[in-house]
Amino acid sequence: MQKLSMLYEGKAKRVYETDIKGVYIVSYKDDATAFNGKKRGSISGKGAINNQITNHLMQLLAKEGIPTHFVQQLSETETAVKAVRIIPLEVIVRSIAAGSLSQRLGLEEGTRLASTVLEFCYKRDDLGDPLVNSSHIKALGLATEEELELIKRYSLAVNDILSDYLAKVGIALIDFKLEFGVTEDGMLVLADEISPDTCRFWDVKTGRKLDKDRFRRDLGDVEEAYHEVMQRLLGRS
Amino acid sequence: MQKLSMLYEGKAKRVYETDIKGVYIVSYKDDATAFNGKKRGSISGKGAINNQITNHLMQLLAKEGIPTHFVQQLSETETAVKAVRIIPLEVIVRSIAAGSLSQRLGLEEGTRLASTVLEFCYKRDDLGDPLVNSSHIKALGLATEEELELIKRYSLAVNDILSDYLAKVGIALIDFKLEFGVTEDGMLVLADEISPDTCRFWDVKTGRKLDKDRFRRDLGDVEEAYHEVMQRLLGRS
Ligand SMILES: Nc1ncnc2c1ncn2[C@@H]1O[C@H](COP(=O)(O)OP(=O)(O)OP(=O)(O)O)[C@@H](O)[C@H]1O
Ligand SMILES: Nc1ncnc2c1ncn2[C@@H]1O[C@H](COP(=O)(O)OP(=O)(O)OP(=O)(O)O)[C@@H](O)[C@H]1O
Ligand SMILES: [Mg+2]
Ligand SMILES: [Mg+2]
Repeated sequence: MQKLSMLYEGKAKRVYETDIKGVYIVSYKDDATAFNGKKRGSISGKGAINNQITNHLMQLLAKEGIPTHFVQQLSETETAVKAVRIIPLEVIVRSIAAGSLSQRLGLEEGTRLASTVLEFCYKRDDLGDPLVNSSHIKALGLATEEELELIKRYSLAVNDILSDYLAKVGIALIDFKLEFGVTEDGMLVLADEISPDTCRFWDVKTGRKLDKDRFRRDLGDVEEAYHEVMQRLLGRS
Repeated sequence: MQKLSMLYEGKAKRVYETDIKGVYIVSYKDDATAFNGKKRGSISGKGAINNQITNHLMQLLAKEGIPTHFVQQLSETETAVKAVRIIPLEVIVRSIAAGSLSQRLGLEEGTRLASTVLEFCYKRDDLGDPLVNSSHIKALGLATEEELELIKRYSLAVNDILSDYLAKVGIALIDFKLEFGVTEDGMLVLADEISPDTCRFWDVKTGRKLDKDRFRRDLGDVEEAYHEVMQRLLGRS
């Protein structure tokens, strides 16, 4: 497979065209940003870790019946994925109150939610990714009703599968963000990444944060936390 | 009916107990506030106008099958209503983008929405009435699923009924806010008010704003706009 021109450089990844129709290469960077780009830095080894964790979890999900964009890992930091038209929604699934939900609804961080919370944010950096509901999504034409139903169903299933899986390695899945896309042949698949950048992972026993909040909140030992998650999931760091 | 102790003084109304079980008296004030109380003022005659417009529209809605808290108008500024436990949600129905929706989603004010937008805000002044979706409502226990379904159905019906009715007097219904409550005998009813304080009314021909935005945005002729709506709806100002 040949890497051709770069299509998009994001804050955490670069996306390249390839010589194979319908396939892109995603290349993970060590760059870290938070608060819509206002805080910037770098987490050494993050690109390799997030690439490998994402691929590990996507393969697990695929086995459980969730269609994903994953095709093949090419190197520590690069993966071939199905090219998709990203649906401009960040889908957030929450089991425990943390971050923006705690602040917005006045819930102490760590409060278990009586039922799973599912949020949609309109992917628009210029607007600060505002929260939207299904009526906004319909009015703005961001997804069809069928796509939205499928996204909801897959997202809740991902939560069940990952929560159970992570619990086995002593990690509590607090919340996470997903993105979905539509492939060239019209299939809705899970895309983007699933990593300590996009999930809140807390050690089950100690409550220690093992995710990007260590960077966001200057908690220290950021690299060590990413390595710890990699070690627990893949048996190597 | 005897007015007994005041139960609640809000920004726009006072609520009193009465000597009749299950009945309160609502007394409308001329006080005006905006931006969660940060802007304060007074609109002369507003209390009387909002009371009479609300009662006029609630009676219209009742005739069309929407249960409301309206019992009987007592004076220009006072009305007997069914006592309810207010469901802590502000239900916003939008046909045309304006106000916070325009800002949050980057839609020019006046853009017709491709489909009706229905929003729920958690009534919590201390949190700035944050937007919530049905999963937040469920997790926080703000309403049961049956209540929420009924609230959605009634709110969309209110939009249809009021839009048609207002169009006949040359007023475009841009958006509005409703509150619902549960009566002592367990019935879900439309409560609170429906007035130029809680709706956006634009003159169909000129686009002139006939609502609280004249106060919020210092557009002048505030009293005159409230009187104009009253005149068109009740044939008197
Ligand atoms: N399979 C795919 N096909 C096409 N684009 C994808 C695919 N998977 C992820 N993307 C997109 O590639 C970009 C990845 O870059 P990155 O995550 O660094 O972006 P970002 O800076 O976080 O910006 P964004 O807010 O768009 O996510 C994102 O826009 C993501 O939606
Ligand atoms: N039938 C009813 N029974 C009990 N309370 C009611 C009824 N109708 C309206 N209310 C409540 O009475 C109060 C009316 O006061 P007002 O509208 O001035 O409040 P406010 O300052 O706007 O505060 P809020 O944010 O609670 O609406 C509101 O809290 C409203 O929810
Ligand atoms: Mg991204
Ligand atoms: Mg009020």
